[in-house]
Amino acid sequence: MPTYKAPVEDVSFLLNDVFQIDRYGNLPGFTDASADVREAILGEAAKLSEEVLQPLNRTGDLEGCKRNDDGSVTTPKGFKDAFKQVAEGGWLGLSAPTEFGGQGLPVTLSQAVNEFQISANMAFSMYGGLTMGATAALLVHGTPEQKKTYVPKMVAGEWTGTMNLTEPQCGTDLGLLRTKAVRQSDGSFKITGTKIFISAGEHDLAENIIHLVLARIEGAPAGIKGVSLFVVPKVLVNADGSLGQRNGVTCGSIEHKMGIHGNSTCVMNYDNATGWLIGEENKGMQGMFVMMNEARLGVAVQGLAQSEVAYQNAVAYARERLQGRSLTGVKEADKPADPIIVHPDVRRTLLTIRAFNEAARAMVVWTALKSDVAHRSNDPKDRQVADDHMGLMTPVLKGVLTDTGFANTVSAQQMFGGHGYIAEHGMEQFVRDARIAMIYEGANGIQALDLVGRKLPRDGGRAAMAFFGEVTAFAKEHGTEEAMKPFITPLSTALGHLQQATGWLMQNALTKPDNAGAAATDYMKLFGLVALGYMWAKMAKVAQDKAAAGTTPYLNTKLVTGRFFMERLLPETAVHLARIQTGSATTMELAAEAF
Amino acid sequence: MPTYKAPVEDVSFLLNDVFQIDRYGNLPGFTDASADVREAILGEAAKLSEEVLQPLNRTGDLEGCKRNDDGSVTTPKGFKDAFKQVAEGGWLGLSAPTEFGGQGLPVTLSQAVNEFQISANMAFSMYGGLTMGATAALLVHGTPEQKKTYVPKMVAGEWTGTMNLTEPQCGTDLGLLRTKAVRQSDGSFKITGTKIFISAGEHDLAENIIHLVLARIEGAPAGIKGVSLFVVPKVLVNADGSLGQRNGVTCGSIEHKMGIHGNSTCVMNYDNATGWLIGEENKGMQGMFVMMNEARLGVAVQGLAQSEVAYQNAVAYARERLQGRSLTGVKEADKPADPIIVHPDVRRTLLTIRAFNEAARAMVVWTALKSDVAHRSNDPKDRQVADDHMGLMTPVLKGVLTDTGFANTVSAQQMFGGHGYIAEHGMEQFVRDARIAMIYEGANGIQALDLVGRKLPRDGGRAAMAFFGEVTAFAKEHGTEEAMKPFITPLSTALGHLQQATGWLMQNALTKPDNAGAAATDYMKLFGLVALGYMWAKMAKVAQDKAAAGTTPYLNTKLVTGRFFMERLLPETAVHLARIQTGSATTMELAAEAF
Repeated sequence: MPTYKAPVEDVSFLLNDVFQIDRYGNLPGFTDASADVREAILGEAAKLSEEVLQPLNRTGDLEGCKRNDDGSVTTPKGFKDAFKQVAEGGWLGLSAPTEFGGQGLPVTLSQAVNEFQISANMAFSMYGGLTMGATAALLVHGTPEQKKTYVPKMVAGEWTGTMNLTEPQCGTDLGLLRTKAVRQSDGSFKITGTKIFISAGEHDLAENIIHLVLARIEGAPAGIKGVSLFVVPKVLVNADGSLGQRNGVTCGSIEHKMGIHGNSTCVMNYDNATGWLIGEENKGMQGMFVMMNEARLGVAVQGLAQSEVAYQNAVAYARERLQGRSLTGVKEADKPADPIIVHPDVRRTLLTIRAFNEAARAMVVWTALKSDVAHRSNDPKDRQVADDHMGLMTPVLKGVLTDTGFANTVSAQQMFGGHGYIAEHGMEQFVRDARIAMIYEGANGIQALDLVGRKLPRDGGRAAMAFFGEVTAFAKEHGTEEAMKPFITPLSTALGHLQQATGWLMQNALTKPDNAGAAATDYMKLFGLVALGYMWAKMAKVAQDKAAAGTTPYLNTKLVTGRFFMERLLPETAVHLARIQTGSATTMELAAEAF
Repeated sequence: MPTYKAPVEDVSFLLNDVFQIDRYGNLPGFTDASADVREAILGEAAKLSEEVLQPLNRTGDLEGCKRNDDGSVTTPKGFKDAFKQVAEGGWLGLSAPTEFGGQGLPVTLSQAVNEFQISANMAFSMYGGLTMGATAALLVHGTPEQKKTYVPKMVAGEWTGTMNLTEPQCGTDLGLLRTKAVRQSDGSFKITGTKIFISAGEHDLAENIIHLVLARIEGAPAGIKGVSLFVVPKVLVNADGSLGQRNGVTCGSIEHKMGIHGNSTCVMNYDNATGWLIGEENKGMQGMFVMMNEARLGVAVQGLAQSEVAYQNAVAYARERLQGRSLTGVKEADKPADPIIVHPDVRRTLLTIRAFNEAARAMVVWTALKSDVAHRSNDPKDRQVADDHMGLMTPVLKGVLTDTGFANTVSAQQMFGGHGYIAEHGMEQFVRDARIAMIYEGANGIQALDLVGRKLPRDGGRAAMAFFGEVTAFAKEHGTEEAMKPFITPLSTALGHLQQATGWLMQNALTKPDNAGAAATDYMKLFGLVALGYMWAKMAKVAQDKAAAGTTPYLNTKLVTGRFFMERLLPETAVHLARIQTGSATTMELAAEAF
């Protein structure tokens, strides 16, 4: 059976030492999140994840969700009680506004908690994750009355939320959607249509489900400019806030899918369901984008979280599994064989995963902190810089953390040999669960296009220039320190590759968009590597400074893992640059029929 | 529902034009395999795979194998009839010796047929695949009586075969195995023990199952030097060849695994089962190695085959799925959106898979041809050169074709967006099925160690030097041809990287084995890239020559795909070299507890 231990020490190192979040005491909610409070919260979150959520992960996968004949859905055994504990513990409202019952704490902290819960039980965590995403959209675009009606209940976990975008004929291209909304005399709408792939669409964890639904109002323009966003509760809410009649929305079936079986992924049928417009008519995508940014960072964390739990289990197995002898002579003579962790190829695999995980975690904290600044700072300039960062890094995080996170679960599974392929050890579940993160909330190819086609050129490349400037300044500041050279030298090389690639795109993609399309995925990966490398350089600097005052096993491991990243992973930037520079000619040469 | 069309034209191009197997008319069986006969066989094999085996792939996955209370195992609906068709069509004996009822045709041809069957239905194909592997071991190490008793029935598909190596405490390190064999007065042995992960261990497709079992004779030396190989039939065979009593071997349970659900992967319990020694006492690994080489090439083909069928389905979907518009303007104005194959990132993904598949197929044909030469030539020098090639390329093929083949199924699944994650389209099954090929028959990390630690240094590096010499000579011969420059220039660069890496290993790994261990996987991938690149250069030369006499869509696509490989995939050699040259210091620095 798989196990999990939340990486509290690593999160604390990032919050306290690397990003020093105590410096942000001027932001609302940050003074409440003092070091002591953070430690207590992380400790409780770890306990909940390790003791309540993780034990339900494999049973949830085996049992799955069941749609009953009356259209209700039963979640796996134990999920209901666990969700109650999550709700009552206030975990869904950790960084929600206090006026709606939340605790108003930094997103920086809630994303760390998020990682623990996803590592412990990804399918389960999605019920709460979707709820937080829907809450975010309501908070930004909902009317005061909508906020008052729905948000407190969702923050409390009494009700949950969903996002309804996809239809059979459209996922990426939402302009093709057909679900229709007919205006009623009382200002409400009647919604009719079919949505597919709706995570947490129907379940037994909460007494109401608040669906946010994209639909087209009768007579609206064709395409994406005629799409509006609606709130459609499963059970209608009376004026006094009590629950009223069942609305015309039902789960038609549960999708048969590769993983995340503990989450009910539903086909949702809307049949004259009553809904209310959120935000402006025909501007539904604005509201969705709020959810999407929130959701994309959450999905990035899913990649990291599955990579982390898979790593931990691979390490435990590699320490225990006795097989063969070390190439450099017997290591444990009293045993029939050495544990496989003596083998360089096993360590290479484990360090490859670990070196990614720790930098990915740093990148999440870094970006979550920018999210807090963007939403809470009084300084317009600070907000703009933070918002630039968010926009630029969201596709990179989503694409790179889920691609690499998935690949890492596969590598971790590989450490188990045949035992990784059978269900018992739980490793194949991590692979199946992690796979979805590369697909939903915008498939990773779309993230790459978003980066190259929108985020990079926006405002004359201001966000990317700021990032390049920050890395360059860091390299300059520490480049002469002998101990930092193993970090700064490869980082500078990698940054050079990214700048060359950016320059190539500026010269070659503006007039020929196919050059951007053919370069997009490699550019995203190149960008991610440089950002992860920068995280390592920052962490190494802090670790070296701390170690100078007295080293610890944690700090030593951190520095060795960082050097491994610099030696073995960061050099991949050269290949991405080479690929980008080949352009699109060969890629686009064949007719579609030739494939 | 997924579809499949066997790549007959591509196989014919390789057999007829690239490797010109008609030149090998002096080898037994090759004159029987004239161009006409090959065409007929490939056509029939395609038909069988497309029409009989492929339709059972998804139903086999859904239904799986069922162990009944009496220990018997029921395979999915349709498997029994399909196996009968395979057996009666003589497909299991295509390249088996004629004296045992086979057709004696080249392995070069039977491996091509093998690819078709695996693409169509991997789980199903394993029943026959294991049978052919067991037959090979019996043919090399069995007594004349053993061959006479078992081989004709196995070639005819009346009986099937298995390999029983793994036990709960050992897979890679077979010296740890505990299954015991007690000598009986009649020369037979009583075998007792538990074997796990036994593919096709029990089923209803044939009236007998011939288990080849590794066990330790009482009093044998400890470790691998005390391991012997036995033949243990499920049903004992009477002197007249008829079936007698049931033997003491039973299926204890079927493993719950990630994929290949149509194949019964069994825990096999041996309880005083009667067995007979194959080959010499305590030299069981010799017999197993025959099976393993056969099996490893077969597993390599599994990687290719799943990549191929996944590619075909991704292409079909990319041509049909309408979503968004081309970056360069509307392509199909009469439709609500363009098919996604207009997008460079989709084409990049598809070409990445295709460029691998076609070179991998060439590498399989190339190596299978060497297998034929090694086993059938009268010339000792030819046999030695071919055997060198086989030894060197087997781990490369197994490791690289299954790693990349799996990655390609994941990429192909990605083309479907959310539809790839649900079971309906069959893409997630390709991923789950392909995953096992990286693990069994020696996990890929073991293949890498086999390459670096054994195959490379063997006979003073003779095999590798021959390969380097062949590529160098080809590059020299065609390097001045203008049309070949896009192939020869990158190939020469990549070969240079491989030679540098080899030199680095010679200088650094002999005295410090950890440097070999830390380099092994990267060296294997680097080697594979160069070999695949060489295949592309050879194919390009032939395609160019043929195109000069009149080009065709096939030849044009071949040349564009080859250039894509050279531009986008082959440059990865640089990163592998860089990683190898970092050595093992950082990788080995941490204590096991620090992970």
